[in-house]
Amino acid sequence: MQFSLPDTISFLSGTPAALNALLRDLPEMWTRGNEGKNTWSPFDVMGHLIHAERTDWIPRARMILQFGESQPFLPFDRLGHEKESQGKSLSQLLDEFARVRSENLGELRALNLQPQDLDRRGQHPALGAVTLSQLLATWAVHDLTHLHQLSRVMAHQYCETVGPWSGYLGVLKCSAHSS
Amino acid sequence: MQFSLPDTISFLSGTPAALNALLRDLPEMWTRGNEGKNTWSPFDVMGHLIHAERTDWIPRARMILQFGESQPFLPFDRLGHEKESQGKSLSQLLDEFARVRSENLGELRALNLQPQDLDRRGQHPALGAVTLSQLLATWAVHDLTHLHQLSRVMAHQYCETVGPWSGYLGVLKCSAHSS
Repeated sequence: MQFSLPDTISFLSGTPAALNALLRDLPEMWTRGNEGKNTWSPFDVMGHLIHAERTDWIPRARMILQFGESQPFLPFDRLGHEKESQGKSLSQLLDEFARVRSENLGELRALNLQPQDLDRRGQHPALGAVTLSQLLATWAVHDLTHLHQLSRVMAHQYCETVGPWSGYLGVLKCSAHSS
Repeated sequence: MQFSLPDTISFLSGTPAALNALLRDLPEMWTRGNEGKNTWSPFDVMGHLIHAERTDWIPRARMILQFGESQPFLPFDRLGHEKESQGKSLSQLLDEFARVRSENLGELRALNLQPQDLDRRGQHPALGAVTLSQLLATWAVHDLTHLHQLSRVMAHQYCETVGPWSGYLGVLKCSAHSS
């Protein structure tokens, strides 16, 4: 499937409401439950998504447009959210994610990208040359990776509770390849 | 995690809005794209979820309360949605799912289940004896299994588009254990 900027923006616009509907007002055993030591709960995932909005997608898009391949992106800190989330409630994180996503999509639209811009290249510190369209597609698939993870982590809390049905529920067989 | 009826109802109430935010107004390449021959698109998943609302959860809960283990449930038809979805739009399916889910949660509340009811047993045609709480927990994890599947199917459409980032995106490494 070819990259489409309007379709990608359309998808990215929906994620905050989807996560809000899925998580808000749920009990802590679901929102704070994880899959064991050093794994993430839905609360942790929300913090990570906010951190990525702040430090990854739009800052890297600007790097590509401004510096091309001459300056590598700053490495992304996968644990960068831990301090920022401390003391916050899940509701605060959901609100914050909706706000930063909306601001970032506003910035993306304001860049007024033309088809030829999407092929411009930047320098990833580990992956090497990447294009702007690859970065923006990754933004969308990163949302999906964490939705995939969230659904698995939430299902895990009920893995015993479903009794003999566990064999029919594929999400309970998924290993943690998306954390 | 122990089964909780109010928490399960709270979770089940949110799924229609989550799917609506995720899928409505997206282009057909995302909503009708699947993972290859004999796999499901998001459109197919929505049809399946509606079919399960109609023939699985509440009808089986009623069977348990009325007949206990003396009469097995009717087998669930995993392809039962195919005819019902024909000619419909995704928007129609999203609306229909929200309506039948809301009706079913109304019926569930009207059953006024007491703690001792949750241990009552029914007869699954393949799995044998199952309890009412296991059935209701499975209703929730079934939503999560299909959210997990949907996120994987949607990510698949962009699996080439993300370029070298594919190695970092766990959802692209998930095999189809949840279809």
